Amino acid sequence: MYQFSERSQQLQAQLKQFMQEHIYPSEENYARQLHEATDRWAPLPLMDELKEKARAAGLWNLFIPPSLAEFADHDGLSNFDYAPLAEIMGRVLWSPEVFNCNAPDTGNMEVFMKYGTRAQQEQWLTPLLNGEIRSAYAMTEPQVACSDATNVELRIERDADEWVLNGRKWFTSNAMHTRTAVFIVMGKSDPDNPNRHQQQSQVLVPRDTPGVEITRALTTLGYDDAPLGHAEMRFDNVRVPVDNMLLGEGRGFEIAQGRLGPGRIHHCMRLIGIAERSLELACQRSVSRTTFGRTLDRHQSVREDIAKSFSEIEMARLLVLKTAARMDEVGAKGAMEMIAASKISVPIMMQQVIDRCMQLHGAGGLTEDYCMAEGFNYARWCRQADGPDQVHQMALGKMVIKRHTEQ
Amino acid sequence: MYQFSERSQQLQAQLKQFMQEHIYPSEENYARQLHEATDRWAPLPLMDELKEKARAAGLWNLFIPPSLAEFADHDGLSNFDYAPLAEIMGRVLWSPEVFNCNAPDTGNMEVFMKYGTRAQQEQWLTPLLNGEIRSAYAMTEPQVACSDATNVELRIERDADEWVLNGRKWFTSNAMHTRTAVFIVMGKSDPDNPNRHQQQSQVLVPRDTPGVEITRALTTLGYDDAPLGHAEMRFDNVRVPVDNMLLGEGRGFEIAQGRLGPGRIHHCMRLIGIAERSLELACQRSVSRTTFGRTLDRHQSVREDIAKSFSEIEMARLLVLKTAARMDEVGAKGAMEMIAASKISVPIMMQQVIDRCMQLHGAGGLTEDYCMAEGFNYARWCRQADGPDQVHQMALGKMVIKRHTEQ
Amino acid sequence: MYQFSERSQQLQAQLKQFMQEHIYPSEENYARQLHEATDRWAPLPLMDELKEKARAAGLWNLFIPPSLAEFADHDGLSNFDYAPLAEIMGRVLWSPEVFNCNAPDTGNMEVFMKYGTRAQQEQWLTPLLNGEIRSAYAMTEPQVACSDATNVELRIERDADEWVLNGRKWFTSNAMHTRTAVFIVMGKSDPDNPNRHQQQSQVLVPRDTPGVEITRALTTLGYDDAPLGHAEMRFDNVRVPVDNMLLGEGRGFEIAQGRLGPGRIHHCMRLIGIAERSLELACQRSVSRTTFGRTLDRHQSVREDIAKSFSEIEMARLLVLKTAARMDEVGAKGAMEMIAASKISVPIMMQQVIDRCMQLHGAGGLTEDYCMAEGFNYARWCRQADGPDQVHQMALGKMVIKRHTEQ
Amino acid sequence: MYQFSERSQQLQAQLKQFMQEHIYPSEENYARQLHEATDRWAPLPLMDELKEKARAAGLWNLFIPPSLAEFADHDGLSNFDYAPLAEIMGRVLWSPEVFNCNAPDTGNMEVFMKYGTRAQQEQWLTPLLNGEIRSAYAMTEPQVACSDATNVELRIERDADEWVLNGRKWFTSNAMHTRTAVFIVMGKSDPDNPNRHQQQSQVLVPRDTPGVEITRALTTLGYDDAPLGHAEMRFDNVRVPVDNMLLGEGRGFEIAQGRLGPGRIHHCMRLIGIAERSLELACQRSVSRTTFGRTLDRHQSVREDIAKSFSEIEMARLLVLKTAARMDEVGAKGAMEMIAASKISVPIMMQQVIDRCMQLHGAGGLTEDYCMAEGFNYARWCRQADGPDQVHQMALGKMVIKRHTEQ
Repeated sequence: MYQFSERSQQLQAQLKQFMQEHIYPSEENYARQLHEATDRWAPLPLMDELKEKARAAGLWNLFIPPSLAEFADHDGLSNFDYAPLAEIMGRVLWSPEVFNCNAPDTGNMEVFMKYGTRAQQEQWLTPLLNGEIRSAYAMTEPQVACSDATNVELRIERDADEWVLNGRKWFTSNAMHTRTAVFIVMGKSDPDNPNRHQQQSQVLVPRDTPGVEITRALTTLGYDDAPLGHAEMRFDNVRVPVDNMLLGEGRGFEIAQGRLGPGRIHHCMRLIGIAERSLELACQRSVSRTTFGRTLDRHQSVREDIAKSFSEIEMARLLVLKTAARMDEVGAKGAMEMIAASKISVPIMMQQVIDRCMQLHGAGGLTEDYCMAEGFNYARWCRQADGPDQVHQMALGKMVIKRHTEQ
Repeated sequence: MYQFSERSQQLQAQLKQFMQEHIYPSEENYARQLHEATDRWAPLPLMDELKEKARAAGLWNLFIPPSLAEFADHDGLSNFDYAPLAEIMGRVLWSPEVFNCNAPDTGNMEVFMKYGTRAQQEQWLTPLLNGEIRSAYAMTEPQVACSDATNVELRIERDADEWVLNGRKWFTSNAMHTRTAVFIVMGKSDPDNPNRHQQQSQVLVPRDTPGVEITRALTTLGYDDAPLGHAEMRFDNVRVPVDNMLLGEGRGFEIAQGRLGPGRIHHCMRLIGIAERSLELACQRSVSRTTFGRTLDRHQSVREDIAKSFSEIEMARLLVLKTAARMDEVGAKGAMEMIAASKISVPIMMQQVIDRCMQLHGAGGLTEDYCMAEGFNYARWCRQADGPDQVHQMALGKMVIKRHTEQ
Repeated sequence: MYQFSERSQQLQAQLKQFMQEHIYPSEENYARQLHEATDRWAPLPLMDELKEKARAAGLWNLFIPPSLAEFADHDGLSNFDYAPLAEIMGRVLWSPEVFNCNAPDTGNMEVFMKYGTRAQQEQWLTPLLNGEIRSAYAMTEPQVACSDATNVELRIERDADEWVLNGRKWFTSNAMHTRTAVFIVMGKSDPDNPNRHQQQSQVLVPRDTPGVEITRALTTLGYDDAPLGHAEMRFDNVRVPVDNMLLGEGRGFEIAQGRLGPGRIHHCMRLIGIAERSLELACQRSVSRTTFGRTLDRHQSVREDIAKSFSEIEMARLLVLKTAARMDEVGAKGAMEMIAASKISVPIMMQQVIDRCMQLHGAGGLTEDYCMAEGFNYARWCRQADGPDQVHQMALGKMVIKRHTEQ
Repeated sequence: MYQFSERSQQLQAQLKQFMQEHIYPSEENYARQLHEATDRWAPLPLMDELKEKARAAGLWNLFIPPSLAEFADHDGLSNFDYAPLAEIMGRVLWSPEVFNCNAPDTGNMEVFMKYGTRAQQEQWLTPLLNGEIRSAYAMTEPQVACSDATNVELRIERDADEWVLNGRKWFTSNAMHTRTAVFIVMGKSDPDNPNRHQQQSQVLVPRDTPGVEITRALTTLGYDDAPLGHAEMRFDNVRVPVDNMLLGEGRGFEIAQGRLGPGRIHHCMRLIGIAERSLELACQRSVSRTTFGRTLDRHQSVREDIAKSFSEIEMARLLVLKTAARMDEVGAKGAMEMIAASKISVPIMMQQVIDRCMQLHGAGGLTEDYCMAEGFNYARWCRQADGPDQVHQMALGKMVIKRHTEQ
């Protein structure tokens, strides 16, 4: 029914081989290095080695689309062609970073490519593309519903040649990581503007700027996502030069809009990868474990669980592929319906798939012995990331009703 | 991501227009004619008129694939290209017959095309292709689990130049219809054959053969599916000439296998059509009905229901399309995994979609005032048609486990 | 944890025996009489015989509570003590009428007992209590959301010594039945009253009053519920004497409120009965049917379905019992939270239980060969009866939030 | 419908007040002490203070049933009377220990009370009842399905006056805790005994016995349950005196059976407590958070979620109460059906309730800022604790089928 470009097919083969040779065999080692780390937020030596290998293999910055190919070592990959690659990377939760394709850096790099000045690109984009630094996107705030970006409360005020930031953020992914060098901070620079979508601006804040304070590392379902992490932060009279404004004063909302579409889809692709892997683990478990005189795979209910999971993964994958193709054709804005459909369907479906696969593993399925429990957390978390599902259901419902009731 | 052939696109446009001009405006009339009929199993005058129009418009026998195009007035449509057409027809439950594309006649015609002798084709296939007669496929039996075709108990015994049939069947669709002229009957001609798949044969039984008895019309959830109907039948020393054997003695299982794949997928396509239409009705209802001071569409829970239904329909459609494409590429046997995935996923999903849409319509949603209640019955019924979902889950689960555990 | 009164326990035993001796053995006969009836809405001879037997056995009007015991041949049964009796009756959908305990007559009798004048009681209540006539409650209207009773549009206007009714109703249960002699009709007598709850009145309309027109019999999921039926009706300048006003002008809403609580709970109790019976059928099927070399009961997924169904029935039963007990203690109004919880939980749960049990029966499970398909329809219908679940969820949600947020 | 004893009602009131005064205000402090602890497995000072207060208030060892009242400072509480107390304690995950009512110590104390010798009781039970030491129950093993206790592989061999233990265990709760002084270890002492239920024995192993090795702390969904913890362990030629045998050689299975019933029910009770509290938090959130121009509680979908959660909690609570009452009447063995029904229904239902409540809290709902995320983990974990739900569904399904098919 559909076919990936030759380039994508070739990269899929290469990537699978790389996973086989370098990533899966490193999983235990990665867990151990993280476990034994004196600083959970410091880069792991293993990650740096793997990054080098991936880059040498040409498996680097694959998320960059053709329209931004000038920034890549390759010709750019459409969302559609990138989808199966993101799925493969998703099979090991920490592996996207190996290929410099991890959230939120991919989204941040896109922001720099699309909206950054030449100087901003040199300072931040180049080392990001090289995987030398990490970045964070400080958007969500603890006190308000930031699924509506106009609710943002952090203040950005002009004082002579500087912007002064005051406010709080949380769920700032990557912010804990010691290598994270820059924050893209969303705030209100013109709160009284009658146009609610021109009140916001985004400014660049180097990590070591006085007044930037990491309050704490947040967990979701017990996971701290080290070494990237999600931070709660304070900005206390943080001053940056006026040149650190991104795109222009009052254009923060515009940037936020442009940033989110691909990100949501990338999450979905990766979730499909971890769900698919969970299913494979469940299949393997089912033939090796015996209960009540027969291997698990000979129990009808086990086969039903496997069959349902297979079907759900396939449906989720097809929905995401269609969404990706639509984005390639008409852009993220034109593909809003499909993006919303993916966002509200894929994470919860993959959560259920992983839940079944964990259950098939007995008590051990919930432990760190398998990738499933943390994958479950990732799926659960994605039902909140970029806004709770309910908000996207509201928007999608409205669009569908409109389509079917207007002449 | 995918594109239908120009021919399919053109037919979709034509078919939509035909539905608009001739089918939707006839729904009330059809219901009235059926309601007022003195014989619920007789052909409706309206149907005959519409069939003539459809044939004149070239919207006839569209289910015929390229490999059997010699039997069609057109070049044949791949499963993939036919899928959207079946979906459009599915929007009105009785409309596939208008286009001579209704179950079980489509499957039976395929049997005649693939396995019939020239004489059998002349006698039965030609009038079937012309829509002059209807046919039935007598497979399922009341006493045994016929999802396993080897369980069939009806006896077919040779006596001189005749086959003698004795046994019972039920859920023989079309059998009630007065225009149904021939039954394809599955039975055991060689019950002691050590090869369990060579014990069965299929023979052709003209409706008026002595000993053929329609015991009763069956209902599912209160619907009798008139005028096609599902019958319980007895075959009591029914005698047919030896030439009425299909394909050859002992090859009944082979025919059964070849018949089922496309049928399951056609059901899924049509179900998507009726679910899509239910969603459209729900959207329209939501803007026209006011409760507690606001139109339904302004309730968050209504939007959530619409959004979920939209997404589920889309996923079901993509799964079926991929299955159809796979069948085109590798045949029904090679596409067994995808066919099973569709069979176990689409009916239950569409049942839930229609259930939500009915609920949005209040008490009226359950009545005959809308197409939804009977559509719900169709979806529910499809979870049993061609074997209960559980049997297909078992088979699919086994295949998936095998794939992921064998070297 | 709880104990039914000795009287209730005794009646349960008697009722079970009566079901065993008279009801279960009559099921086929009942179906046949209905099937062969020239008028589907006429009383069945079998029903009249059974009613006589039930009355003779003292199993009559058991729904009457202690507070209204003056109208009963017994001392009245609390909601709690009646619950298990209603469950037992619910096992055969048509059996409650045998015991003069069927909806909507029970609710209507309660209305007469609580709000009727002596004359109204003599005319209508006495024959109702004797099971000689049937009654209908004309409340819901096709055009408006009657889950909010203030939306009612039928007009009741005073003209000299008469009330004149104009308007439409639908889902008027029992209205098709030829023995139904009286309609309790809800309408607006004072549409401009600033108090929205004093605009309505209820008047008694004898069936043969000129202008009363039965438009059609409605079906739900294909069932017409004959011989009781659900009708769509017109009231066209229907005139009744002023004495036919119930309770008093402007008190229609008050009557409606008082009527609904027990009715909802009775539905739930009966649904538990039919679900429990479906489960028993599924258990019996599971040991008698063989697929793939083993009886169904040896498949793990069958056991899981049985176990879930058992647990869900038990939870539903306990919820209803607690609701009944609460109503006995504090009245329907005080028990509003629990009544709503039952209304939104029990029908959908029982629908799922019956759906599973049908599925275990193969295609036959959807037919009239078992009580399940019609029981499924009953459960589905109860999600709309007395207002769609969503309305009750809204009300309950509001109450729960209030309780947990007010000081 | 039911009533708790006066004693239970009084204790409920006292316990609620204690929670209000001492537990809720300590939650932040508890989290901080644990977070800042140099050893996560050491007892927290706060816990010791609270235990003293609880004991002084008479809220101590409330789990002890009347039949074992000789070991309590009170007359013993039936399972039914204890249920609401366990629910109240469950509202704060760590609080049961404050009242010396936490798993697995309660189950272990019961084992000592029922099966211990006077000497064993003096050495271990007395300090356990005083809350001076903790205990662990080493049952589950990493390599085998221990939901079938006969699968246990750890070897217990007699050597002169000693038992010698060799094998592995995991999910040994409490084993990480530095105050845990004794392990009850299940193993095979007579693996060749033809009676599969007499092959096992249970022996007491003091923590400091040479050869006892804690391999690692396990997590479930990212939680380590410190300071109690779940450990993986090795027993390497661990030698204990023959007197450390519990009850008698070959009676390990018997002890295991006797231990599990109440434990499963206690988990359910506590889960209801944490779910109820999550619902209260969701209600409070709903009135204080504004999205899209209205507080959350004014969105219909929020009310539906609250209404469903309220109803599900109520059903779960009633199921558990009935199970408790049944156990009081006929013992754990006689109540097997109800215990299984609770085990397979309550954890998954409470998981869903908490999931909804988390979702209503936005991203913050998944963090450690609320009790919900860890409560979710507790519910998820209980679907595996004491055997995966599937095993109990199998057993319950079998019993129900048997009941309905035997004469």
